[in-house]
Amino acid sequence: MKLTIRKNELNEAVQQAAKAVSSRSAIPILSGIKFDADHQGLTLTSSDTEISIQTFVPAEIDGTPVVRVERPGSIVLPARFMAEIVKKLPEDDIEFEQQGGFQVTIRSGATDIQMIGLDAEEFPVLPDIGRQQVIHIPGELLKNMIRQTIFAASTNEQTPILTGIQWQLQGGELKFTATDRHRLSTCSADLGAPESDKFAGIVISARTLNELSRIIPDSEEPVEIAAADNQVLFRIGQVLFFSRVLDGVYPDTSRIIPQEFKTEMEIDTRQLTEAIDRAYLMSREEKTNIVRIVTLGSGDIEISSSSTELGRVTEQMRAVRLEGDELRIAFNSKYMLDALRVIDSDKIFIGFNGSMSPIVIRPTDGDRQLHIILPYRTTG
Amino acid sequence: MKLTIRKNELNEAVQQAAKAVSSRSAIPILSGIKFDADHQGLTLTSSDTEISIQTFVPAEIDGTPVVRVERPGSIVLPARFMAEIVKKLPEDDIEFEQQGGFQVTIRSGATDIQMIGLDAEEFPVLPDIGRQQVIHIPGELLKNMIRQTIFAASTNEQTPILTGIQWQLQGGELKFTATDRHRLSTCSADLGAPESDKFAGIVISARTLNELSRIIPDSEEPVEIAAADNQVLFRIGQVLFFSRVLDGVYPDTSRIIPQEFKTEMEIDTRQLTEAIDRAYLMSREEKTNIVRIVTLGSGDIEISSSSTELGRVTEQMRAVRLEGDELRIAFNSKYMLDALRVIDSDKIFIGFNGSMSPIVIRPTDGDRQLHIILPYRTTG
Repeated sequence: MKLTIRKNELNEAVQQAAKAVSSRSAIPILSGIKFDADHQGLTLTSSDTEISIQTFVPAEIDGTPVVRVERPGSIVLPARFMAEIVKKLPEDDIEFEQQGGFQVTIRSGATDIQMIGLDAEEFPVLPDIGRQQVIHIPGELLKNMIRQTIFAASTNEQTPILTGIQWQLQGGELKFTATDRHRLSTCSADLGAPESDKFAGIVISARTLNELSRIIPDSEEPVEIAAADNQVLFRIGQVLFFSRVLDGVYPDTSRIIPQEFKTEMEIDTRQLTEAIDRAYLMSREEKTNIVRIVTLGSGDIEISSSSTELGRVTEQMRAVRLEGDELRIAFNSKYMLDALRVIDSDKIFIGFNGSMSPIVIRPTDGDRQLHIILPYRTTG
Repeated sequence: MKLTIRKNELNEAVQQAAKAVSSRSAIPILSGIKFDADHQGLTLTSSDTEISIQTFVPAEIDGTPVVRVERPGSIVLPARFMAEIVKKLPEDDIEFEQQGGFQVTIRSGATDIQMIGLDAEEFPVLPDIGRQQVIHIPGELLKNMIRQTIFAASTNEQTPILTGIQWQLQGGELKFTATDRHRLSTCSADLGAPESDKFAGIVISARTLNELSRIIPDSEEPVEIAAADNQVLFRIGQVLFFSRVLDGVYPDTSRIIPQEFKTEMEIDTRQLTEAIDRAYLMSREEKTNIVRIVTLGSGDIEISSSSTELGRVTEQMRAVRLEGDELRIAFNSKYMLDALRVIDSDKIFIGFNGSMSPIVIRPTDGDRQLHIILPYRTTG
C-alpha cells in the first residue's frame, strides 16, 4: 500500500470509523481500523462485533483529487492512536507507505511515524446483506423517531430483547416501539413505501441506535436501510453502518393500548412540563419520583409531590379541556417528563381509566406518537 | 423571615453559594445554604469546612428594588434542591415566608412549596479575618497565575502540603510556586503593594484555587485578599470566599532553580508544542510518556518517542538559537506539554545541564514564569 491523502477528509473518515471501536475489546484486531486502498479510493472499516462501520474516501470529490493511490493494499492500524494523531499532523497531505510485512510509514511535513500494523486478512468480514428489502427515510425523521422512543427501552440486560427498539414496516408505515414494562413509547411515520415492503420483527439495540443517531447529519438527506435476517445495514452518505438484530421475541404490545378513557384532559404542554419538573425535583429527594395529579372542580388540576425530609410542592393549573370521572393518580414523574419532553405540539392529550390503569399521553395534533405510563399504586 | 426577591438575582446568588456545598457532607447542616434576611438585603452562606462562600443580594441594585424584607430572620434550606428549583419557578418574583419553627413557604405564581428548614443557629460561624494584611489583584491576573502553576501541584494526599500552591508576597511582588517533586512551576506579578506588606508561607489547596478560579469573572475587576494565620478571605464583588490555609512547612525551592546552563535553546512555542504533542500520543500508549530530545548538528533538534506495540514517531525541527553542549535527554512529555500550554509568548527558552539535570522552561519575553521538569534516567 502506498498513497497520499488529504488530512481533513482522512480525519473525518477516521473519526466516523472510530465510533465502532470499543475501548476495551478482548479481540486485539478490533482495536484497529482496517485501511483498504485501491484506485477508487480508501475504505476504512471498524467493528465491535455488535456494530460495524465502513466509510469511504473517494479518489476525487467534485473533481478535486483527495486520495492518490500508487500501490493498492490493506493493513489494520490502531484506532485510538490514528483518531488522535491524524488531525494533529502538521501538513494538509499525509503519505502512507507500507514497508515489508505490516510496517507502515506515515509522513506529513517533518513528522515521520513508523507504525506496526496488523494483518488485514484477520479482520472480520462484514455481513453480506442482500438488497431484497431496502427502504429510505429522511435522516432527520429517523433521528426524531429514535429520540421519541429510545428512553422507554429497558436498561436491564436480563431481558435483552427489551433493551432494543422494535421496528415494524407495514402498509407503507414504519412504527417504532420501546418498553421497559413500566412504560411504553411508540411513534410512526408514513414512508410512502410500497405495500409489499414489510418487516415485522426487527429489534435493534437502543445503544446501537444512539450511536447511529450521532452519525446521521441533521438533514433531509435520506438514509437507506437494508434488512436481512440478523443484520441491518444503514447507508448514510459515504458511511455504511451495520447493526446486529437482537435475538428473541418482542412482546405483543398492541392490546395494552387503551382506546377509551374514563377521564380525558387536554393541557398546555410547556406549562404541564414545567410543573411536573418542579414536582419531580422534590420527589427525587425521596428516590421514588412519585408525583400526584388530582382533578379539582371547574377544570383545574393539582400537581403535588412530597419528601419526608424536605417538604412539599403543590400547584394548580387550568386544563384546556377536562372531561369524565374525577381522578387521583400517582406516577413516576421521571417517566412522565421523558414523554412530555419529546412531544413537540403545543397541547397534549392525557387519557386515564382510574388510578390503577395505564396513563396515555399523546400530542393533540396527530396520532404519530403515543406514550403509556403505568401508575403507582399508593395509599392516600 | 418574610421577603420577596427577584428570581434572577436570587438564582445567581444560590448558584455561587452552592459551589461550597459538598454533595456528600457528613454534617447534615452543611448540605444547606443559610439565608439571613435583614433590611439591607439577603445574605447566603455555605461551607464544606475547607471553603466557605458568602454572597449578598442587596435590597436595591442601581435604584431598582431587588429584595423587599418584611420580617428579618434566618433559616438553613437544602442547597441542592434550592439550586435547581429557584431557576425553574414560574414567575419573576419569589416570596419566602417563615411559619412556626423552621417551616418556610416559598411561593411563585401558582407554585407553593412548603420547605422544612434547619436552625440557622447551628450553622458554623465564618472565621473573623482581621484586615491587617489586605492586597488587591486584578481578577484576570489572579486566574492566570493559578492556571500557570496549578497543574504542577501534587495530587498525592500523603504529602498534603504539596497539594497546594505556595503564595509569597515580598517587596511588592506576589509569587506562586507549585511542585509535585517531579516538576515545579512558578510565576510572579508585581502588585505595586507597599514594601511593608508581606506574607511568606501561605499555602492554599489547588482544589480550592480551582473553585476560586471558577467564581472570578474574566475582568480587570480587583479581587481583595485578606490573610490571617490559618484562613484567607477573597472578596470578589458581592461574593466572599474563605479558604483554609494548609498546615505544614513548604519545601524551600529557591536553590533548585539552575542559573547557568550547558545547553541553551530558543524555539518557536507553537511548533514545539505540536511536535511534543504528537510524540506524547505515541508515548502515552507505553504508559511512560517518555519523549526524547536530541540535538543534531546545524541548529536542529530531533524529537522522538516509541511504543513497543505501535511503533515510533520522529521529527526534526530548527531551533531559533541552539548553543552549548550536545544533548540527549528523556522526559515526561505530559509534564512538558502542561508547561508549554500555559506559556503565551511566541518563543520559549529551554535550558539544560546534561541528561541527568533539571530542564528549565520559560518564555523568552520575561521572567514572570518558570517551569522545571526532572528528566528520566533512561538507557540508550
